[in-house]
Parts: sequence; structure tokens; C-alpha cells
Amino acid sequence: MSDEKRLIESLRALATHPAARGLWDDAAVLAAPIGRDLVLTHDMLIEGIHYLPSDPAGDVAWKLLAVNLSDLAAKGARPLGVLMGYALAGDAAWDGDFVAGLARATAHFAVPLLGGDTVSLPAGTPRSLGLTAIGEAPRGQAPSRTGARPGDRLWVSGPIGDAGLGLAIARGVIEGSRRLLKAYRLPMPRLAEGQALAPHVHAMADISDGLLIDAGRMAEASGIAVSIDLDAIPLSIEAQAFGTDRSARLRAATAGDDYQLLFAAPDAKTDKLLTLSSTLRARFTAVGRFGAGAGLSIRDAAGDVPLPGTLGYEHGRQD
Amino acid sequence: MSDEKRLIESLRALATHPAARGLWDDAAVLAAPIGRDLVLTHDMLIEGIHYLPSDPAGDVAWKLLAVNLSDLAAKGARPLGVLMGYALAGDAAWDGDFVAGLARATAHFAVPLLGGDTVSLPAGTPRSLGLTAIGEAPRGQAPSRTGARPGDRLWVSGPIGDAGLGLAIARGVIEGSRRLLKAYRLPMPRLAEGQALAPHVHAMADISDGLLIDAGRMAEASGIAVSIDLDAIPLSIEAQAFGTDRSARLRAATAGDDYQLLFAAPDAKTDKLLTLSSTLRARFTAVGRFGAGAGLSIRDAAGDVPLPGTLGYEHGRQD
Repeated sequence: MSDEKRLIESLRALATHPAARGLWDDAAVLAAPIGRDLVLTHDMLIEGIHYLPSDPAGDVAWKLLAVNLSDLAAKGARPLGVLMGYALAGDAAWDGDFVAGLARATAHFAVPLLGGDTVSLPAGTPRSLGLTAIGEAPRGQAPSRTGARPGDRLWVSGPIGDAGLGLAIARGVIEGSRRLLKAYRLPMPRLAEGQALAPHVHAMADISDGLLIDAGRMAEASGIAVSIDLDAIPLSIEAQAFGTDRSARLRAATAGDDYQLLFAAPDAKTDKLLTLSSTLRARFTAVGRFGAGAGLSIRDAAGDVPLPGTLGYEHGRQD
Repeated sequence: MSDEKRLIESLRALATHPAARGLWDDAAVLAAPIGRDLVLTHDMLIEGIHYLPSDPAGDVAWKLLAVNLSDLAAKGARPLGVLMGYALAGDAAWDGDFVAGLARATAHFAVPLLGGDTVSLPAGTPRSLGLTAIGEAPRGQAPSRTGARPGDRLWVSGPIGDAGLGLAIARGVIEGSRRLLKAYRLPMPRLAEGQALAPHVHAMADISDGLLIDAGRMAEASGIAVSIDLDAIPLSIEAQAFGTDRSARLRAATAGDDYQLLFAAPDAKTDKLLTLSSTLRARFTAVGRFGAGAGLSIRDAAGDVPLPGTLGYEHGRQD
């Protein structure tokens, strides 16, 4: 049996949802949810760009699922299933670990694998992985990135910067807690938070590339300005061990991979948001405010903060 | 402006459907079709494996869309939209030609681009392209690959082997008509045929890897046997110029990329199928029969034909 056939057999064991049709078909077929919106997203991970070649295969599988579910979370959607595009690179042990990780991740989030495609890459080619997630949301309620209004507060759903420190740990640049490494390798899509927040926010997105760059994108997409209060950015206990001063907070605000939610809401919603935060045992925190005009500005207790040269992980985002 | 930003801007111009949200969001949001089934598929194309590095970029875009729409066609589905995963490989002119080709293809099939992702590959990496197509079909009517029954006839929706000759032309191995080259580079998903056939067939799939291998897969998936009548395989006028004998027909039956539909139907449906074929100006042709047992056999006027060593393009198919 070829590596590819073995891989497909192992995926078949995961694809038990009736819509997957046992992976015998070239397409998944499922009943459209009645009276709901469909939410669709597709994100890719490239070896050496979106993850380190040394990252465990099972963790890469988790991340591939998590980054896509995070996009659903930002639309307040509940996942219905995923399709995966998997490129074999001639390492059957890696493939096996990947599928085992995918099994853990899909079980954890109760998201069925519905189908996809497998291809074999020429030897020496970096792995290329893609995943499409489909979800459902109440009709007309999925928040966009473009809806922030002047006067809205900018909120984050939890601590910022953990994953950036985790990446530095994974690279061997610093030493730190396993929880930080886990924040980088096994990010948690904020699905419950997104569904709870969606009816109450003007705009929502996830923080994949860094708080500053993603906040700037929300302001740009909404056609307004945003100002960030650096001192307000929540840092985890573990991250605080690496400093809480301006430079530490700028580092947190420009690191990617946190997959917290970023949302805009009027002041009148503040009490509601804090109640939700408490109910969900989250740490929703207001970190800035939108205003008329354009652009991103940062301040802290000492005054205006010059924008750093890099606001986050700069790569193309098509959607 | 970076190549990636320029690419995203050009894709934004394509993504005019409201569900695409101007590509400002990380997900597409569209109303679920009421009382319908959703049909979802994801296929990848890898440079040097699924297309030649010398193939025009615009044709690669067409093919990426067409191979996915072909999977929808085999389920009798109508396309609702697509999400694309695009890997830039450092050639802005190629990217531009690709997007121009994608614009032509999405316009031709009236399929909106709803979203996706773009990534930049390390220099020298073969391109990796993925596309997810979502479609809708009448509830409970999407045929599967597994439904063929003993006694069913095996049908194809049109001429077989054109794309294989087109590939040989593209490689410079033979000289032949532009129509054959076009069959390889610009395949036509049989959407109208699939929608018309779906209520009348027991099983359906598309021929992506070769008639013999795909017929064998349908038999295996259905738990029965299939026998192919080599003489019955329809060849185009252009293909007939390369021979109509056993070896020419075996070559046609083992070439991939035709994207005709392959379907199983009882004899009682023969008149209906021939009427549909005439209405659609197609060339539905019965080329074999399913029976009890297992495996694939081939015969022609001279008797049993030994199975060729290669039944088609052998790669992993996850779904």
C-alpha cells in the first residue's frame, strides 16, 4: 500500500460523518441548515512560513484546523465541517503523526472531516496544507471587519502576546513556560466567545497577524481611525515574566498567532460585554477606541508612542 | 505595493458577490439555500504534477476551477461559489495571467469567487493551488459513487481520450489539433449534464484519472464488478485520427483529465438517457455493464482484453 493510500485510509477512519460519504465520493453532501447563513473560510499553512519545520506534525494539524475555526469564530459561526487539502512530502511517519493530531483536534472541537484532496509533492518541496471550514450563523448576524464606528471601543477577547513568546521558545531564542509554547503551537479558536459576542458587536475579526496590524486593518476596512492604549493590553502572568514596560507591550502587540478575537462595540455595550466575559471565564478587555479620520495611533501613560516599523506579521490576506 | 497586495487587489475586483464581502473579511457569508443539500469539494493542483510548468497561467486557472466544478457536476449540483488558496511563487506576470484566466473562467461558469487565502512560497518551490467549490443540489438526490447495482449499464457523457492526446501535444510528443490541446488545458465540467442526469442514475462520478481506473473505483465503491466494452468507447473525430484499434482505445481509456461524467443506470433508463443526450447535444454512450462479483474486466470484438499495467493516473484520492 502506498503512503498516500495509507494516509487516505487513516483519514477515512476520521470521516465518519454521513456527509463525508466515507470519502468515497469526490464531494461532501449535507443538508443546508434552514434559515441560517453559511460561513466559509479557507486558510493555508506553508512549512517554514506559517510553522517551523521542527514543529510536531500533530501540532501542525491542530493549528491548521484552529486557524480556520478562528475565522469562523470571528463571524460568530458554529462549525459544520472541514475539507482538507494535504500534500504528502515523502515522510510517512510525519503523515501518521499529522493524522493523529487531526483526529485529536477534530474530536476536541467536534468538527467532522467531510472531504478534501491529497497530493504528493516532488521531493524536497516544503509542505503545503490547506483547509476549508464551513460553519453556520444566525441569518444576517455575522459581524464583518468593516462595521466599526467612530466612538466604538476596541476590545480583545483575552491576553495578547503569548503565542509570540511561544514562537521564540520554539525557536530556542528564549526559555519560558510550556503554556506559552502551547499558545503558539496549539492555539484555541474562540468559538464560544465569537458566538456570544456576534449579536453585540459592530465589527469582529481574529488576531492572526498581531494586534496592531489587525486593529489597523479593522480601522481601514471601516474607513475610520483607531487609537490603542498600550497599557490596557492584557498580558498573561507567564508573559508578564518577560516584562510589562512599553517595549514588552509593543512586542506583544506586534506578535501574531494569538487568535484572540478583536471587536468593536459602543460604550453602551460595555456592561453586557463584561458580563459575557465573566460568564465565559474570558478576559474581554477594552484596549482602544475608534474615531473619525484614518490610521492607527498608539499611546500609553507616558504619552504618544511612535508606531513600530513592523505592526505584525505582514502577509497577503485575500479574505 | 507588494506582488501579494497587487494580487489581492486584482482578486478583489473579481469578488463582487455580496457573500465575498469585498474580501475584507476572513470568511464568506451567504444565506443557506432553503431545502437544498450543500455539495462541497476541494481539489489541489501542483505544478509539475497536475499541470506542466509550461502550461499558460490563465489555462491553469481555468483548470483549477474546472476540476472542482466537475466534482460538483458529478453530484448534480449547481455551483454557488468558490474559495481559492493561492501560492505566489515570485512571478508577478504569471500571477497576473492567472487572475485574468480565473476572471474568464468564473465569468464563463457564472461562479463567484467568495474568498480564500494567498501565501508566498519560498523561492524555487513548485506552485501549489487549491480551490474549494460549494454547490447546491435537490435534497437527497446527489448521486454517490457507491450506488451502482448489478445489471446497471455503465455510461460516459462524451468522447474519451481527447485530453490524453492533448497532453501529448502539450509535451511535444505528438502533433495534433488545437481542439485536443484545448481538451487538456481547458476542460469543460459537465454541469448541465450532471444536473439533468442526477435524478436518473444509480451512481455518478467524473472521469479525472482515466475511464478504466474511475470505472474500477465505482465498481469497488459499489461492491460489485464492472466489464468495459472497449469498442463502445466514444472517440472524437480528432482522436480517431490517432487510431481506433485496441491499442488506441486502451490509450484513450487509461488517459486522464477528460472530465466527462461516468454513471450507472438500469436498462429501463436507456431511452430517457438517450433523450437527455439529444436535448443536451451530448453523446451519452453506454460502455459497459456492472455485475455481481468484484473487479474490472475489458473486452472488445476480438474477445477478452488483458488489463493494461496502468489503468489511469494513479494518485491518492481522499474524497
